[in-house]
Amino acid sequence: MTKYIGILTAGGDSPGLNAAIRGVGKAVVGHYGMHLVGFRDGFRGLMENRTAPLEGGQLSGILTLGGTILGTSRDKPHKMPVGGKIKDMTGVIVENYHAHGLDCLVCLGGGGTQKNALRLKEAGLNIITLPKTIDNDVAMTDITFGFDTALGIATEAVDRLHSTAHSHHRIIVVEIMGHRAGWLALGAGIAGGADVILIPEIPYDVDSVAAAIKRRSRGGKPFSIVAVAEGAISVQEQARQAALENKKVKKAKDADVEEPEIIYADRTIKLAQQLEALTGLEARITILGHLQRGGAPSAADRILSTRLGTAAADLIAEGRYGFMVAARGEATEAVPLEDVAGKVKTVPIDHPWVESARRVETNFGD
Amino acid sequence: MTKYIGILTAGGDSPGLNAAIRGVGKAVVGHYGMHLVGFRDGFRGLMENRTAPLEGGQLSGILTLGGTILGTSRDKPHKMPVGGKIKDMTGVIVENYHAHGLDCLVCLGGGGTQKNALRLKEAGLNIITLPKTIDNDVAMTDITFGFDTALGIATEAVDRLHSTAHSHHRIIVVEIMGHRAGWLALGAGIAGGADVILIPEIPYDVDSVAAAIKRRSRGGKPFSIVAVAEGAISVQEQARQAALENKKVKKAKDADVEEPEIIYADRTIKLAQQLEALTGLEARITILGHLQRGGAPSAADRILSTRLGTAAADLIAEGRYGFMVAARGEATEAVPLEDVAGKVKTVPIDHPWVESARRVETNFGD
Amino acid sequence: MTKYIGILTAGGDSPGLNAAIRGVGKAVVGHYGMHLVGFRDGFRGLMENRTAPLEGGQLSGILTLGGTILGTSRDKPHKMPVGGKIKDMTGVIVENYHAHGLDCLVCLGGGGTQKNALRLKEAGLNIITLPKTIDNDVAMTDITFGFDTALGIATEAVDRLHSTAHSHHRIIVVEIMGHRAGWLALGAGIAGGADVILIPEIPYDVDSVAAAIKRRSRGGKPFSIVAVAEGAISVQEQARQAALENKKVKKAKDADVEEPEIIYADRTIKLAQQLEALTGLEARITILGHLQRGGAPSAADRILSTRLGTAAADLIAEGRYGFMVAARGEATEAVPLEDVAGKVKTVPIDHPWVESARRVETNFGD
Amino acid sequence: MTKYIGILTAGGDSPGLNAAIRGVGKAVVGHYGMHLVGFRDGFRGLMENRTAPLEGGQLSGILTLGGTILGTSRDKPHKMPVGGKIKDMTGVIVENYHAHGLDCLVCLGGGGTQKNALRLKEAGLNIITLPKTIDNDVAMTDITFGFDTALGIATEAVDRLHSTAHSHHRIIVVEIMGHRAGWLALGAGIAGGADVILIPEIPYDVDSVAAAIKRRSRGGKPFSIVAVAEGAISVQEQARQAALENKKVKKAKDADVEEPEIIYADRTIKLAQQLEALTGLEARITILGHLQRGGAPSAADRILSTRLGTAAADLIAEGRYGFMVAARGEATEAVPLEDVAGKVKTVPIDHPWVESARRVETNFGD
Repeated sequence: MTKYIGILTAGGDSPGLNAAIRGVGKAVVGHYGMHLVGFRDGFRGLMENRTAPLEGGQLSGILTLGGTILGTSRDKPHKMPVGGKIKDMTGVIVENYHAHGLDCLVCLGGGGTQKNALRLKEAGLNIITLPKTIDNDVAMTDITFGFDTALGIATEAVDRLHSTAHSHHRIIVVEIMGHRAGWLALGAGIAGGADVILIPEIPYDVDSVAAAIKRRSRGGKPFSIVAVAEGAISVQEQARQAALENKKVKKAKDADVEEPEIIYADRTIKLAQQLEALTGLEARITILGHLQRGGAPSAADRILSTRLGTAAADLIAEGRYGFMVAARGEATEAVPLEDVAGKVKTVPIDHPWVESARRVETNFGD
Repeated sequence: MTKYIGILTAGGDSPGLNAAIRGVGKAVVGHYGMHLVGFRDGFRGLMENRTAPLEGGQLSGILTLGGTILGTSRDKPHKMPVGGKIKDMTGVIVENYHAHGLDCLVCLGGGGTQKNALRLKEAGLNIITLPKTIDNDVAMTDITFGFDTALGIATEAVDRLHSTAHSHHRIIVVEIMGHRAGWLALGAGIAGGADVILIPEIPYDVDSVAAAIKRRSRGGKPFSIVAVAEGAISVQEQARQAALENKKVKKAKDADVEEPEIIYADRTIKLAQQLEALTGLEARITILGHLQRGGAPSAADRILSTRLGTAAADLIAEGRYGFMVAARGEATEAVPLEDVAGKVKTVPIDHPWVESARRVETNFGD
Repeated sequence: MTKYIGILTAGGDSPGLNAAIRGVGKAVVGHYGMHLVGFRDGFRGLMENRTAPLEGGQLSGILTLGGTILGTSRDKPHKMPVGGKIKDMTGVIVENYHAHGLDCLVCLGGGGTQKNALRLKEAGLNIITLPKTIDNDVAMTDITFGFDTALGIATEAVDRLHSTAHSHHRIIVVEIMGHRAGWLALGAGIAGGADVILIPEIPYDVDSVAAAIKRRSRGGKPFSIVAVAEGAISVQEQARQAALENKKVKKAKDADVEEPEIIYADRTIKLAQQLEALTGLEARITILGHLQRGGAPSAADRILSTRLGTAAADLIAEGRYGFMVAARGEATEAVPLEDVAGKVKTVPIDHPWVESARRVETNFGD
Repeated sequence: MTKYIGILTAGGDSPGLNAAIRGVGKAVVGHYGMHLVGFRDGFRGLMENRTAPLEGGQLSGILTLGGTILGTSRDKPHKMPVGGKIKDMTGVIVENYHAHGLDCLVCLGGGGTQKNALRLKEAGLNIITLPKTIDNDVAMTDITFGFDTALGIATEAVDRLHSTAHSHHRIIVVEIMGHRAGWLALGAGIAGGADVILIPEIPYDVDSVAAAIKRRSRGGKPFSIVAVAEGAISVQEQARQAALENKKVKKAKDADVEEPEIIYADRTIKLAQQLEALTGLEARITILGHLQRGGAPSAADRILSTRLGTAAADLIAEGRYGFMVAARGEATEAVPLEDVAGKVKTVPIDHPWVESARRVETNFGD
């Protein structure tokens, strides 16, 4: 009996989403002869029954396209703004799933989406998810699609800032995405040869950072690049937050808040000002922001998206549901949603990348 | 008799500076058999006698290199911070020029540099300048080097932001360099297909902008890209500034302030907030900042830098001094420094680019 | 009365075609309220009545797209292969033009297209053309769209080949498009810092080339990049061809043959072999081929395509027909088709680019 | 006691070589306080005692640089052309190693280099190697540096060729490096959405290829991209070669011949001609050649090169010699040279990439 499959993209947009939709679609429709329908703007579209056809020519020419042809949103099934109120729309979503006669729903998203997908699984739906995020912080997978492309964009930015730092004898502080995990700042910092890399996992001491910059300056290099992840904090700030958390309900750690659009800029500006004061060098900041999400996926991301997408189709063909398709070396692996949801993959402080960076004289402010 | 030539780069760094240094150098040394010495960090290096050799292998491999191998600064000969005070160091500079036995000093820079160069000419030195700036606002030349590269970078950014605007149904306001002239925002706006372009030369009405965005939204496109030059202002703000200027000495218009590092971000943030309120769509901002200055020059900029550089050498060989080498079509032209200094090339409000943009439905907020 | 406009793309594909279609379309339909229909695959589509709608969403998202959404062909109205024979289909084309009730046909193409367009004008049709070609060899316009993008691609290739030439101490001969005019090889050669540039306009002496490479090698640079245009010939070959032409009807010069897909590779291979023999250095060749045509147009090409496209719409609105829209500085100019057709814009041997290149020690083999 | 380390790069040049030299150098000199000297042009430089200093500023600014600052050659210690004869220079190399007082020699290279390094190990030297090659065919490592960059370049080429294939309704056959292993063609084929991928590991039937192209054409897509690895062969050719090998000593399989500069173009041209004849569609070829080796390494390659380089330094600090530093997930592993030398890592015919490609309707000609 022919299966009917639904697909949606949720959370922040990320390069490779369309390549993954194409991978799922070509395999599901072309290879396995099933039916596929898209839902618009994440879980909201499923709730509102807004569909997008995917069996015509819609999959052609999208392999290289940034963003998502399905649209996306950060709406959660169980806490969805409807008519000015926040409601639990899980029931409506389950209803619509069945009304469409779906055999499986494929959800492409980051950490928050894995949690929402698990909720729908627990509500009885057949779910497969793919791990998408430029932050690379989804648990239980080697890597997420979007990361390699964002890494390339952030690295190119660091390269460009080198010219201006060098020509003007300046400190340039470049803020890179990642509020819980420092993968992107760490990777772009190594690849771009940043002199200082600050990530959430290694609280920094601004005096250590300034000392490292002054050492470089005395050694004849009166310019430095500081790659800072959005979520990087100083040891002082960490202590202050820890004190607060003992008193209050912690808010920032709510894993449902997938990539909130918080302004980290203030913290970055303050860091630049401190470094200027401590080193006597001019400091400038650059905030990469949404640039890191956009544009055509890299070759590596297109391959990753394609193979995760076709592996999702394989699972569906086998009738195996309730899994995230994870990248494991050059192969893929089905990981139960329960093992993924609610977890964040942060950078271990003794990770090989960190160890390697320290050996090429990168400072981590610790 | 063999001539001795000095060269320096002043003002903000810009792609193509090294290509121009190479162009001057290969022609002056290799073709004409003269001598060439670089001065570090703009006029300051000439004042402090800090030189850089350019007759060894230093010109190899720099054609593609961003920034400037000579370093740069915004220091002005007649108002230079020395020992905590602002002093007129013109005399020292003239002295050093003669101490080095120079026959000519080549100055690569933007509008401010042209003025400083004219002052040195008036102090008796033989001067040739080249027009450099990513803003394209130097008078009397078709184009400046650095502009085409920055245009490419800004356009690529607009391209990337399209993905995310489209996927999330958002307004994205992208701030592009240009505080006096809107060339870069206009060019990148056209090339990137921005829906709204705001430049200093055409004061905007935020209600017109919001209306244009709402028209698009009603027509099925609930996302818009707004390309805004740093110096773009609303008609209200313009009126307010005009009122102030009648009372006070105007400061911002002091043409000596070459590309001041003013924070335009506040204005851009406010614009995004207004548009969010007026349209009901989510708005996000991206500030490109120093990214626009960095990295390898484009092919067009390398050709431009090279031909301006070799034309400078031709003038020197002919003993013609006191000129800026301007681009005029595919040829070059020697323009007396008096005709350039103190002028700014802004975008005429009926410029062919503006007219063309209006026909592809771009809104200018007027 | 509302006008009906047709549009087609002919000749080799070129970056910027879609941007130009969009420019014409948005201005003709959105700004002037006329109707627009596309014809597929050049003049053949008009002959066969194969149309493409352009008034729906077809113009969205194509600004950045390479190739042409209309398809293209090299078919000529007066010599079209039909049913295995070459026929004059001008009559059918004129008939179809009237059957569609067209007020004007816009033809986007290179030198050959200008000639074909003139024939249709002489057959009584209202024609406007735009100058498209990566070769930049259309007469009477400052520049053609496609050139800047191809220049960027070819320059990037030269940059990359530098790494390998340098690391292996080799001569690398890179063949760049341009069988009649050397603009692309000249531009990419200057921008990429090629040591030797060979173009059709300056017949070369292989001994001079080898001597230049040996001079570099003796000076400590045992590697060289030779940028050679497809149509570059040696003085010996030129003499041989001239002798032949006195006897026979010349074929290669038939201007109807727009960018024939001739294999120039043999000539390039032979040149590399000669240089290897004469210099004692290893030589390798790279033939860029169709890579130079593809991909997203550069920012400069998108602006150029857009303004030529909207200027075409302006002419149509004024009822002025029979012109090519030429780029003249930052403005446009209507040039009578009679002044363009059959001409080729080659590189003057004393062109400022050539003069500049000689001053940075580039060898032209003469 | 301070150690003295030598380093050289051998075989074809590859992006990431300089990043790896920097990684080794910063760790060896800056982190561990040892001494480092470079040898020029591979094993030849060690034989001729031509050194390059690496303890000054030479490691600055090379992270992003293509090629190798040390130069390279394909010379083998035991079969080196000297004075017109092929000689075994192993003894001289061992002598020079000791004359320089080296404690270890780091060799960066591909499959051939691993074999040569093993020979030097067997001659008593302390050796560490890094796996470099754009072909990704070195055994016992997840990946080699250079591959990701070449993958990006080849994918970009496929993207560009899509425009022209689509616009002209053509078959485009693009030849991608890889004469023994098809990793690069496979990867770029998937990432670029090639319709047919031909690799050495899966002999193809030209009729199957033509049938797949005709199916696409009948389905409304009269254009196809064929990504073909240099070493891809038809089943017929394979049979013919097998017959020959039974009679003769096999030459092409000599693993000492690291990446011979054989002309595969003829085979590719013939394939295009066959497809043209069998499908009735126009076919064109593009041969990427040396373009795939050049230019700045990708972010992923810079990270890989850096961590392999610093891991080499760690081994040296521990006094562990005779290993290749392999990439194993995000960590590294020391693999005995004996386990690597003489092996080629080809694509398993049921590799996850192949399986995934088949599901998105890619044809492998089998």
